[in-house]
Amino acid sequence: MNSKKSNDSARPLGVAMIGYSFMGKAHSNAWRNVAAYFEVPAFERRVLVGRDADGVAAAAAKYGWPESATDWRSVLDRDDVDIVDICAPGFMHAEIAIAALEAGKHVLVEKPLANTVAEAEAMARAATAARERGIQSMVGFNYRRVPALMLARELISEGRVGTVRHVRAAYLQDWLADETASMSWRLDKATAGSGALGDIASHAIDQVLFLLGDRVTEVSGRTHTFTTRRPGADGLEEVTVDDAAWATLSLGSGAIASVEVSRVATGQKNSLKLEVYGDKGSILFDLEDLNELGFLDATLPVREQGFRRILVNEPMHPFLEAWWPQGHILGWEHTFTHQIRDFLQAIAAGGHPSPSFEEGLTVQRVLAAVEESSAAKSAIIQLTEPDAP
Amino acid sequence: MNSKKSNDSARPLGVAMIGYSFMGKAHSNAWRNVAAYFEVPAFERRVLVGRDADGVAAAAAKYGWPESATDWRSVLDRDDVDIVDICAPGFMHAEIAIAALEAGKHVLVEKPLANTVAEAEAMARAATAARERGIQSMVGFNYRRVPALMLARELISEGRVGTVRHVRAAYLQDWLADETASMSWRLDKATAGSGALGDIASHAIDQVLFLLGDRVTEVSGRTHTFTTRRPGADGLEEVTVDDAAWATLSLGSGAIASVEVSRVATGQKNSLKLEVYGDKGSILFDLEDLNELGFLDATLPVREQGFRRILVNEPMHPFLEAWWPQGHILGWEHTFTHQIRDFLQAIAAGGHPSPSFEEGLTVQRVLAAVEESSAAKSAIIQLTEPDAP
Amino acid sequence: MNSKKSNDSARPLGVAMIGYSFMGKAHSNAWRNVAAYFEVPAFERRVLVGRDADGVAAAAAKYGWPESATDWRSVLDRDDVDIVDICAPGFMHAEIAIAALEAGKHVLVEKPLANTVAEAEAMARAATAARERGIQSMVGFNYRRVPALMLARELISEGRVGTVRHVRAAYLQDWLADETASMSWRLDKATAGSGALGDIASHAIDQVLFLLGDRVTEVSGRTHTFTTRRPGADGLEEVTVDDAAWATLSLGSGAIASVEVSRVATGQKNSLKLEVYGDKGSILFDLEDLNELGFLDATLPVREQGFRRILVNEPMHPFLEAWWPQGHILGWEHTFTHQIRDFLQAIAAGGHPSPSFEEGLTVQRVLAAVEESSAAKSAIIQLTEPDAP
Amino acid sequence: MNSKKSNDSARPLGVAMIGYSFMGKAHSNAWRNVAAYFEVPAFERRVLVGRDADGVAAAAAKYGWPESATDWRSVLDRDDVDIVDICAPGFMHAEIAIAALEAGKHVLVEKPLANTVAEAEAMARAATAARERGIQSMVGFNYRRVPALMLARELISEGRVGTVRHVRAAYLQDWLADETASMSWRLDKATAGSGALGDIASHAIDQVLFLLGDRVTEVSGRTHTFTTRRPGADGLEEVTVDDAAWATLSLGSGAIASVEVSRVATGQKNSLKLEVYGDKGSILFDLEDLNELGFLDATLPVREQGFRRILVNEPMHPFLEAWWPQGHILGWEHTFTHQIRDFLQAIAAGGHPSPSFEEGLTVQRVLAAVEESSAAKSAIIQLTEPDAP
Repeated sequence: MNSKKSNDSARPLGVAMIGYSFMGKAHSNAWRNVAAYFEVPAFERRVLVGRDADGVAAAAAKYGWPESATDWRSVLDRDDVDIVDICAPGFMHAEIAIAALEAGKHVLVEKPLANTVAEAEAMARAATAARERGIQSMVGFNYRRVPALMLARELISEGRVGTVRHVRAAYLQDWLADETASMSWRLDKATAGSGALGDIASHAIDQVLFLLGDRVTEVSGRTHTFTTRRPGADGLEEVTVDDAAWATLSLGSGAIASVEVSRVATGQKNSLKLEVYGDKGSILFDLEDLNELGFLDATLPVREQGFRRILVNEPMHPFLEAWWPQGHILGWEHTFTHQIRDFLQAIAAGGHPSPSFEEGLTVQRVLAAVEESSAAKSAIIQLTEPDAP
Repeated sequence: MNSKKSNDSARPLGVAMIGYSFMGKAHSNAWRNVAAYFEVPAFERRVLVGRDADGVAAAAAKYGWPESATDWRSVLDRDDVDIVDICAPGFMHAEIAIAALEAGKHVLVEKPLANTVAEAEAMARAATAARERGIQSMVGFNYRRVPALMLARELISEGRVGTVRHVRAAYLQDWLADETASMSWRLDKATAGSGALGDIASHAIDQVLFLLGDRVTEVSGRTHTFTTRRPGADGLEEVTVDDAAWATLSLGSGAIASVEVSRVATGQKNSLKLEVYGDKGSILFDLEDLNELGFLDATLPVREQGFRRILVNEPMHPFLEAWWPQGHILGWEHTFTHQIRDFLQAIAAGGHPSPSFEEGLTVQRVLAAVEESSAAKSAIIQLTEPDAP
Repeated sequence: MNSKKSNDSARPLGVAMIGYSFMGKAHSNAWRNVAAYFEVPAFERRVLVGRDADGVAAAAAKYGWPESATDWRSVLDRDDVDIVDICAPGFMHAEIAIAALEAGKHVLVEKPLANTVAEAEAMARAATAARERGIQSMVGFNYRRVPALMLARELISEGRVGTVRHVRAAYLQDWLADETASMSWRLDKATAGSGALGDIASHAIDQVLFLLGDRVTEVSGRTHTFTTRRPGADGLEEVTVDDAAWATLSLGSGAIASVEVSRVATGQKNSLKLEVYGDKGSILFDLEDLNELGFLDATLPVREQGFRRILVNEPMHPFLEAWWPQGHILGWEHTFTHQIRDFLQAIAAGGHPSPSFEEGLTVQRVLAAVEESSAAKSAIIQLTEPDAP
Repeated sequence: MNSKKSNDSARPLGVAMIGYSFMGKAHSNAWRNVAAYFEVPAFERRVLVGRDADGVAAAAAKYGWPESATDWRSVLDRDDVDIVDICAPGFMHAEIAIAALEAGKHVLVEKPLANTVAEAEAMARAATAARERGIQSMVGFNYRRVPALMLARELISEGRVGTVRHVRAAYLQDWLADETASMSWRLDKATAGSGALGDIASHAIDQVLFLLGDRVTEVSGRTHTFTTRRPGADGLEEVTVDDAAWATLSLGSGAIASVEVSRVATGQKNSLKLEVYGDKGSILFDLEDLNELGFLDATLPVREQGFRRILVNEPMHPFLEAWWPQGHILGWEHTFTHQIRDFLQAIAAGGHPSPSFEEGLTVQRVLAAVEESSAAKSAIIQLTEPDAP
């Protein structure tokens, strides 16, 4: 097991990325652009890793990686690699991330942290151990770096909505609304772990925790698959993950959050909707309009109260000073750019980037409780605090 | 027990109304205006009934009733009264409605039908019996006569959204968001039966059933009171009803509906939000913009798909021909005007107005199941079909 | 010429209304309902006047007038008529209104005040003279009684938007978008005076003046007819009024207002859009959502600035205490109910209702200047202040 | 004068960019990213040019240019430079662009084409001459590459809105709403040419022409400066450009467009609003929500007509296949990425990129006519077609 390589060497941090499909493309964009907008420690993109040699070579050329490779293990042995960015499918997260941490690499891993609680626990343990050696890690809940949601969190933590009672979180998509859409590895529990639950409820639940700084104590949940068989290579195949999920979460503060996610909500394309209701104000958000935040200040005279549409594009808004003048909106992909910036800055400062693997594990436990409750006719599941380390 | 008075006499139908606060004012408006817009059988407002003699006399003068009275029983004895419109509090519904039906009066009763399932069952039995004698009855789920929601039901029944999978129903208000707001009979289980559940979840659930023409087979639910003590006449008093409620409903068709209601959703004033997702299209609605319907037609080319804002104010929209030119929006109160029109026309035609007491009972059973599930840690409650009569 | 009948007699004010089509229906609604919501002096609807005996009799029965008549002159002779509400077409306004004022009747006349400046001037002179005898008059710019616009005016006059620089006023409809829509008297200059200009630009211009409390000093304008021939009784007929009009108005304060109106803006049904930009804030409004006001307070920290959607349905909002609880929206027709309330209260108090005929004349002069500029290749026309009386 | 270097050599196209402030940053982003998303001919960023040696060197390092320089003329002599991207201020456009074209470089120049019609004419002549030698040029009206506006143009050209009657174009910003904001070169006619007119009305007018494929025949216009003196280095200085401008444009097709632009529309950050009304449908757009297009299809049954919000993020939408899955919105800066892609592809194909300098000149003539009309009390100015070459 390696010890941490010195950071204060003149050498730029070397970055390897594993995976080059959707998330690989998005992370590559972030690595390609982050230094043009933010002050970050020097780094160099070194190598892109994928299973198909031709495919990964073409992707490397296109996305700006000087080299490609097919064996992620060999990459962990390289001295010129300091950071491993894992965009491989969820079932590979634990193995790669743990190996990388043990090899002394800083690790960024896509969300959800893992497909099972057991894997996530192992990863969190590895992260804790690595952190003591100065090795950092982070799980890629990129929506924590949407400037509007950062502003929401600020307003909530400043007390601007008062005591939060309700949260309504929904993440609605429709790419499976067509029942003739094909079977894929994402619809197979063996590879995907779960469906909408792990993929998008994980984001919704992470946001509840992020925005409120709270924890989940009880869960009642339900999952459902509307289309149970889909056309595969050899005819109709069994869909073994959920299309949609519902939950109510009791929070430590006494607030209650509802969560509803779906991949069959026709017409909703990528709509993560968040509503936070406190006794002094409220917050609204929709990812399809990610540059906007709704805010109602209930301490103003009633005569003039109303939800404001704040266009979160002013220089004093989180991350915005680096970008364009007011009203020139940011795209979805820069949630990753912001994530990389914070990850790099934390590494340079020796700080601990957030969300940590432990935070990823917390989300994983809630997801598992939703499934457990669903199997128990929606009866409430208690979530106990994990023992302090 | 009287038999039905002949309808084809030249005499106009005489109307008595019981109750003169919020709902009494709204129903009075409907009786005062319905004939100016719609072809309805001749009727005459006869008497307004309330407990306080001065109060009811003043209300009668203001709202256009020629007479007032304090004893509802004596009104049921009057030969010049053919219709009784019950706007008294929920715990009085059963007694008055059953007596009125037995006295041979057509009855319109405000929603929810009653405070308990037992009362609602007795009322439904009385309505069934009366109907055989030509006496009609109706429960006032007035939002069934929002033109936009009637259009929504038409589109759904025509197959324009295809097979419905999801429904999201929420009814959010904020008049109890202030924890110093006073105690009242509405917050006392003895008088109000329940809180947000009976008051507004009843509307939301009725709409799910109305829009889809479906039935509820299973319920998982939860209720919660955020502010448990409020200032009353003699200091802090116990709030014994819910502030908010959540449920998932399995429907006979296989669809699943989520329901969420609250009186503490700061900034949401009277927002009954309905979303219906099918495999060919979707519907959106918000009562705060009750002249509008959102509709997405997923059978159009994807290139041009999107939620449309239909301003439901065209002459061919339900009820609209009677009103103003396009774009001149209707107010909330005309849901009652439309309700009275349909009630009167059904009486004249000898038809059975809908929603019937039986339909009101159906909603009541779902509400009871939410409470039962809430008491059982949200575990799913099966709803069996009531025996056919 | 009669002198004013005493108001302090016990006798209720008698009302006659002339005209029973669109506006007659809307005004009837107001007379039928105003006393159920507001404290107003006692009045009685007496007689509805129209040219077609059967038509007006049927309308009277439907809308709640006890009597009908075909000769408006004879109605002016009646001692039991104190108020004349003129909903006849614009070219009849001057003759009837002047005769009614001379007969000692209080007069409410629909907007625009008249079809020509000359008529409007005569009416204003008659109103001034009558006022000295205690006879009141008012022109029906009903949108001055939209609660949201009253709130807008309050905010502006309180300085909440600071110094106003820009106003953008548009009134967009689409009922002539179909070029096969028929010819009618409304499209003939002889009867209608003008097209979109008089009909809806009059509202837009009145609102600019109302909201800002300002006056117009210069006008550049343009009118246009997109469809110049339409099918009439005997084949295609010439359309002699405008379909659309544009103007910029210099205001006394130094602000500049743009005005754009159209009857061929496909998809815009009744969209009077108003935007007011000051140095401390801004206002947005759309008549299709008449219960809402957009307000941006630029004195708040930039971080949290944004346009608020104020649902103007709270008890402290103008006129709202009389109506329903918060969030239960009002319909378009109650702009007339509010207008009648203020008209009646002004009569009772001996005050001068606003907008006066003089204010109606002011709008008329601006409309005339738009036409004059349009004829002069849009060159600016100066508007001089009329001589003080 | 060089002749065109062969394009089919193996050598990548070399790019020089002049200017490194706002537009330089935006164009650099496009050059840095275009090849990661689109198939474009091979190119290499060679050199960034600016007046301040240190500043331009730092910018080159940050934005990804391998080299920097201070003398743009020397860069034109370089054989390894094939493309010159001009982001310098408007008053330098003509000189640099003409020199670059004469030096045989392909030229992309920021909008507006120039500060005066005379300069624009000279540039258009140079572009025409260069085109014959295979040298391409383009003016950077980047909003032509907003996918939603490309979709709008497609729908219009396919006849989906029918015959266009009205266009309403507004471009509203508020960065000068504060009257204490400082004087700058942008507010000085000598350097900036004009104010909101050249800066943002140019975009609005270009869009009118782009969307409709039409030309302007008549202009009535007006410009205004609300704050005439602003604090400069030596106290208050004269603002010599407009804060706001208004115009109506007659189009060759018979349609009429209104244009209104402002830098003092408090609360409007970067709101280019476009509305197109035809006899079969309408289009709505707002740059603050640049991923969305409003579309109303008036050929559908009236019952279900309404403006749709099309989220222009589907794979079949213009440029979108290259990006993210549906609903993952694009940012403002990718209008430039799309522009570079089309520019590069046109160069490779030997085609003529659009908008050409001639198209830029057309916009310039309309801007000049607005100023001319404004000086002539808004009287209409005729625009004659320039002589065919």
